[in-house]
Amino acid sequence: MTSAWGSRPVNLAITDVRLTPILVADPPLLNTQGVHQPYTPRLIVEVVTADGVTGLGETYGDTKYLELARPFAAELIGHQVTNVNALFAIADEVAVDQSRVSGQVDVGGLRGVQTADKLRLSVVSAFEVACLDALGKALGLPVHALLGGKVRDAVEYSAYLFYKWAGHPEGVPAEKDDWGAALDPAGVVEQARKFKERYGFTSFKLKGGVFPPDEEIAAVRALAEAFPGHPLRLDPNGAWSVATSLKVAKELADVLEYLEDPALGTPAMAEVAAGLKGAARSASDKGGGGRRAGVPLATNMCVTTFAEIREAFTKDAVQVVLSDHHYWGGLRNTQQLAAICRTFGVGVSMHSNTHLGISLAAMTQVASTVPDLHHACDSHYPWQSEDVLTERLVFDGGKVTVSDAPGLGVELDRDRLALLHRRWLDDDGTLRDRDDAAAMRVADPQWRTPSVPRW
Amino acid sequence: MTSAWGSRPVNLAITDVRLTPILVADPPLLNTQGVHQPYTPRLIVEVVTADGVTGLGETYGDTKYLELARPFAAELIGHQVTNVNALFAIADEVAVDQSRVSGQVDVGGLRGVQTADKLRLSVVSAFEVACLDALGKALGLPVHALLGGKVRDAVEYSAYLFYKWAGHPEGVPAEKDDWGAALDPAGVVEQARKFKERYGFTSFKLKGGVFPPDEEIAAVRALAEAFPGHPLRLDPNGAWSVATSLKVAKELADVLEYLEDPALGTPAMAEVAAGLKGAARSASDKGGGGRRAGVPLATNMCVTTFAEIREAFTKDAVQVVLSDHHYWGGLRNTQQLAAICRTFGVGVSMHSNTHLGISLAAMTQVASTVPDLHHACDSHYPWQSEDVLTERLVFDGGKVTVSDAPGLGVELDRDRLALLHRRWLDDDGTLRDRDDAAAMRVADPQWRTPSVPRW
Repeated sequence: MTSAWGSRPVNLAITDVRLTPILVADPPLLNTQGVHQPYTPRLIVEVVTADGVTGLGETYGDTKYLELARPFAAELIGHQVTNVNALFAIADEVAVDQSRVSGQVDVGGLRGVQTADKLRLSVVSAFEVACLDALGKALGLPVHALLGGKVRDAVEYSAYLFYKWAGHPEGVPAEKDDWGAALDPAGVVEQARKFKERYGFTSFKLKGGVFPPDEEIAAVRALAEAFPGHPLRLDPNGAWSVATSLKVAKELADVLEYLEDPALGTPAMAEVAAGLKGAARSASDKGGGGRRAGVPLATNMCVTTFAEIREAFTKDAVQVVLSDHHYWGGLRNTQQLAAICRTFGVGVSMHSNTHLGISLAAMTQVASTVPDLHHACDSHYPWQSEDVLTERLVFDGGKVTVSDAPGLGVELDRDRLALLHRRWLDDDGTLRDRDDAAAMRVADPQWRTPSVPRW
Repeated sequence: MTSAWGSRPVNLAITDVRLTPILVADPPLLNTQGVHQPYTPRLIVEVVTADGVTGLGETYGDTKYLELARPFAAELIGHQVTNVNALFAIADEVAVDQSRVSGQVDVGGLRGVQTADKLRLSVVSAFEVACLDALGKALGLPVHALLGGKVRDAVEYSAYLFYKWAGHPEGVPAEKDDWGAALDPAGVVEQARKFKERYGFTSFKLKGGVFPPDEEIAAVRALAEAFPGHPLRLDPNGAWSVATSLKVAKELADVLEYLEDPALGTPAMAEVAAGLKGAARSASDKGGGGRRAGVPLATNMCVTTFAEIREAFTKDAVQVVLSDHHYWGGLRNTQQLAAICRTFGVGVSMHSNTHLGISLAAMTQVASTVPDLHHACDSHYPWQSEDVLTERLVFDGGKVTVSDAPGLGVELDRDRLALLHRRWLDDDGTLRDRDDAAAMRVADPQWRTPSVPRW
């Protein structure tokens, strides 16, 4: 392959793939399953072309992902970084250890349904991003140009608020953070203030499902009072019954931008959605301020794969899908998901789990190409004090500027990477697979993953 | 922008756009609305970058498309060819003369619903393809690589059989063709034989809606006998009632790969689909060879825009969508349509109207990237003796090899283009807007566009 303007032929074949599992510091953030461990696993992927261009990708780092990434990486030698569509067929050939899928929970179900295909897609996504990064660098084009081009110059993110301890349990090796505790409405508002001061965020999402619903309603009310007119969201990770979901939605109807995964699974979400629609209609009939169509429901738990879309959309169970490019198989698949949502009148935005700057850069690149992104995206990035980049990405006014530099526009800090990999190597295995319930048991030995609905 | 391997910076800004309306020869092919005119309008689009790279696109050439293409082209100067996603926003700003949309038929409805958005998308598609061609040429990459990469090396097409006169009416200026007449089962089989000999096609589609259904059933039966086991399709362009559609589908159930647009509009198609499903179920209950789920219905008339998908898929009205990248707004939108179909368990393939080699190259590039393309695509190309390329594309064994040359892999023949444009300039206006009914009136002055359902 020869470029039209360069005399030197370009060789875009992959000659080397490097997989580096790492452990990154994570604050004691609470959710319905337990609490984040002090360190969480991520996998850093590098693909190197024959011309020596290196592309970066990042995905979940738990053992089961790593087990798939290794044979997948071996298949990639000789593959062209231009051909990301072919990655799916290669992935199909990589066997998934069924014991990793059936009979095991994936962080208590926080990542939605667990299937062999979804595991494969979560691995493919890191390689797709790495291929696009390498291709962009080789061609001198930003990743968004390889995705058809950006339609906005900055992508808006929301503050991701968590109930949180001041620190990890005593005696547990951990990094310190300066966010303090947040265990009641005042603490949550204080955390939100810090988020706003430090990063300029104007929408706020509270991870709920931690305390009884009335306490979380009070926290959202406190946020609404402290930040009038700012979009607010609450996400209990499916911890509530249909009745509780309806109760909370109705009580917070005037302040919620959307309610995320109040109940678990499409049938329950459909029931909640129908109940909210009926209530809105009845309020409207009575002439009582019922102009809203009811609080929209968002999800990152009942629609996390293409196979789940049909039922959920047909039943009108969700009004906003929160895409996670890791689950969905990469940036091009994220664009396709957005097209499906647009076609069916469903909103789209982005979910986030613990991630580093490579994934934030990838999220920002693809989000810049999605025409109707009407909700600020989620990102855990502010909670991650550690990264593997030479320069951290910056939130300015709650937004990340879309980089026009070649590829993702980020550079790997090999010393940092080596340090975090060393931490992974030194671990005795207890931190290599994220387990929020195990972390909670350090503080509360009686803790068991709660059965759902919890309230 | 500087490439990573070349020392010379690349300038991908559009500095010039050329629009060349042409008239190309078309044989006297019959359809339910009338007959093809001896010449049909097409619009050839060229975008030129600051570096002098020219990209090619092609779309419908009727006046209403041309009227939109001109202001659109003016907006493109300075636009980067990398940013095809932004073309839609530019198109939204171009005003559509409403008299072109409402109160007018678009070739008797053969191109499906007519809306301002669809007109715009049909124009955007030519510019999107031209931008991708230019970008591919500038980077030394085939268009499929800009679409994520091919998943097959050749794309299969079907023979597109037509009822046909031996020649256009006497006294009408026209090019001659050597296909002969096809007005009965024997003539259709003879035409199919020629298609197979010349191009190696193994699937056959008959454009129907021309003769009473029994005659067309006989023609399909004759094809089934002459070419046992080969996929067959029949497309009456919505000319039939629901009852007639069901009758034909049942009579041809054992030989049809699919039935295309038997009845007009989603409600009628849904009724046909439900009837066929019911019949298949009842045959199965009786143990009578009813293993099939009924003849699948394909469409290029009731689902021709994203806005039409939801109703059609929810009602299970169609089992295969035939995409036309001109209507749908280009190659990236075609990929998105394919993703939507895949997600909802609906098949996808490609529609064709009269087109030249630029569009065949574009169809082949995008088709090579669609993972589950399980039906041979349609193409009128064999009927077009004239083209604007230096070398015609070749069907070998019914397939077009996917070009790995930069861009679309085709080159413009400027002398041919000038000649066909001269024909357009010399036309008094009667051929600049395709009108199959008008062409039929030359032979039959009493002819009026038939009302639907015709049978």
